[in-house]
Amino acid sequence: MPTRVTLTTDFGTRDPYVAQLKGVLYAQGPSSLEVVDLSHEIEAQNIREAALFVRTAWPRFPHGTIHIAVVDPGVGSVRRALAIEHAGQYWLAPDNGLLSWLLMATGDVRAVALDHARFGTAPLSATFHGRDLFAPAAALIARGAALDQLGESTSDWTQLAWRSIESTSSGLRGEIIHVDRFGNLITNLSRSDLAVLGEAWTVRVGTVESLPRVRCYADASPGVAVALIGSSELLEIAVRD
Amino acid sequence: MPTRVTLTTDFGTRDPYVAQLKGVLYAQGPSSLEVVDLSHEIEAQNIREAALFVRTAWPRFPHGTIHIAVVDPGVGSVRRALAIEHAGQYWLAPDNGLLSWLLMATGDVRAVALDHARFGTAPLSATFHGRDLFAPAAALIARGAALDQLGESTSDWTQLAWRSIESTSSGLRGEIIHVDRFGNLITNLSRSDLAVLGEAWTVRVGTVESLPRVRCYADASPGVAVALIGSSELLEIAVRD
Amino acid sequence: MPTRVTLTTDFGTRDPYVAQLKGVLYAQGPSSLEVVDLSHEIEAQNIREAALFVRTAWPRFPHGTIHIAVVDPGVGSVRRALAIEHAGQYWLAPDNGLLSWLLMATGDVRAVALDHARFGTAPLSATFHGRDLFAPAAALIARGAALDQLGESTSDWTQLAWRSIESTSSGLRGEIIHVDRFGNLITNLSRSDLAVLGEAWTVRVGTVESLPRVRCYADASPGVAVALIGSSELLEIAVRD
Repeated sequence: MPTRVTLTTDFGTRDPYVAQLKGVLYAQGPSSLEVVDLSHEIEAQNIREAALFVRTAWPRFPHGTIHIAVVDPGVGSVRRALAIEHAGQYWLAPDNGLLSWLLMATGDVRAVALDHARFGTAPLSATFHGRDLFAPAAALIARGAALDQLGESTSDWTQLAWRSIESTSSGLRGEIIHVDRFGNLITNLSRSDLAVLGEAWTVRVGTVESLPRVRCYADASPGVAVALIGSSELLEIAVRD
Repeated sequence: MPTRVTLTTDFGTRDPYVAQLKGVLYAQGPSSLEVVDLSHEIEAQNIREAALFVRTAWPRFPHGTIHIAVVDPGVGSVRRALAIEHAGQYWLAPDNGLLSWLLMATGDVRAVALDHARFGTAPLSATFHGRDLFAPAAALIARGAALDQLGESTSDWTQLAWRSIESTSSGLRGEIIHVDRFGNLITNLSRSDLAVLGEAWTVRVGTVESLPRVRCYADASPGVAVALIGSSELLEIAVRD
Repeated sequence: MPTRVTLTTDFGTRDPYVAQLKGVLYAQGPSSLEVVDLSHEIEAQNIREAALFVRTAWPRFPHGTIHIAVVDPGVGSVRRALAIEHAGQYWLAPDNGLLSWLLMATGDVRAVALDHARFGTAPLSATFHGRDLFAPAAALIARGAALDQLGESTSDWTQLAWRSIESTSSGLRGEIIHVDRFGNLITNLSRSDLAVLGEAWTVRVGTVESLPRVRCYADASPGVAVALIGSSELLEIAVRD
């Protein structure tokens, strides 16, 4: 049975960074290890974008999956590196807030701060912990290492400040947290947030008083902005085509 | 023996859509399932580009391969979703013409319109059928489900209008159907179309009366436009380097 | 145990070239074959960029890995195609200098010039040797073919001219050989080159007399250019964030 290691980075693929990381995983992991690319196109050094990405993507994977995310402007500094186990999945990332949105939605995790000195692998470079720290740690987990062989337990980590939803006299105020490839504006207002408003809510954006609500993109007229609950159960604002 | 599922989409990889789709495939498919990325860089909502892509790429794969293509501006509307079996391969895509060029070149297919109610999986979102419909269907096929367990048989599907080649008094008139990364202009005139002209044909483009014909790009002089039969057996117009 | 074939190309993934190459590998290779994407974003026709990429990436992989690199402006011309075995890895690429930097750093290789007539596969197109020559050769190696079944032995190959490091009265003069996604300027001066200078060296770039030296990007002040030894053991010039 294969052990899958997924990768989410801001490295792009024109430079040889992803390739080196894969080489280390295959060289140090068990022969059954398979690498799965999730994204190498996270905006460079954009930790918030990565945090949204992993919260949306990782929970879809089966037990036993090992996930690595590296968006790491502080590499080589004192920032710690985390390995977290939850429901049979493993999450590895720098302790810079990248995992904080995922962790907000998750109870019952076990976490360690990675201690490279325990790995018995090549020296740690100051600038490429994806290759020298996270990949070796994932390879060890794939070979059956327990988390506490990789570092000291920890129960605190860096939190990004996520703006909360405001309840105002006229309704709820959220924010746009992502613009996707199709130009859809994705907000932090979820279907369950909106449920408190009943059925009769309308969406106001900027000076537009009330956007038409639709069920899917194809229900909109071309060129008209509409509001809908998107595939991540969040309110989206979209313009067809 | 691994069961391979290939992906061809217009999702890009900066957003978490491809990642979610992979998560569902791995979670719902057999442990031997392997995902193979073909492209996530089809131009957004460009069904014709996707149709050309899959006709060129999919026939190269071995029996048993399951292919998913999702370029789906009509997601959530009444457009159907197709699963097709041909020569031991499986093709899954929205019924929007994406498969129509491939099907033109293919006899003897079995086809069903996917019926999500038969899957026993999570509810269908209105906006992301790649994750909620095509990936679960592929996982079921990978687990051994027969096509007729996934929906009703069908024998008609959406056809894109492909401009046919005109036979004129001065020869054949085709069109440019794709411009590739290297700037090569790929036409819809195949080697066999051109065979009816014998050997003495010349290529006219716009106001250029007769392009030099070459066998490969390296036979051209730098900066000079030439005509050649490319790797897909189609007439191409190229400028070296 | 899987046999892994890595791909490094300048094809991009919007066109169906990578997809066709993968189809041939899966169709002609053993069922245990796995394709690993390293990059399809090498700058179009930039052989030097590919040469730097493979030298940095390929040595990280384990024994038994088969690597294909295709950046091939001379495809279809008389340029030869190489298959090289070194320390249990296999390297396949056009003989245009792509492998020359890797080979400079490597003794004890066995090399053949690929002879398509020996393969017993489909005819060779004039424009797509990735699909018609390198993929079938890799599939044969993955099935256990010995190198000398694929072509005649050779011991010479095309060398790119790599500018050497100059020793001047004021120190060493190197050059910038790559600019990565994060804007880091990577030079051809390695840690061992610099060792001859002792510890007291400084870095001069253009009119800037002496760049601050740091250990990692996070040690720099935002907006200030610094010098450091990067993850490939080469001198880099970087500006934080």
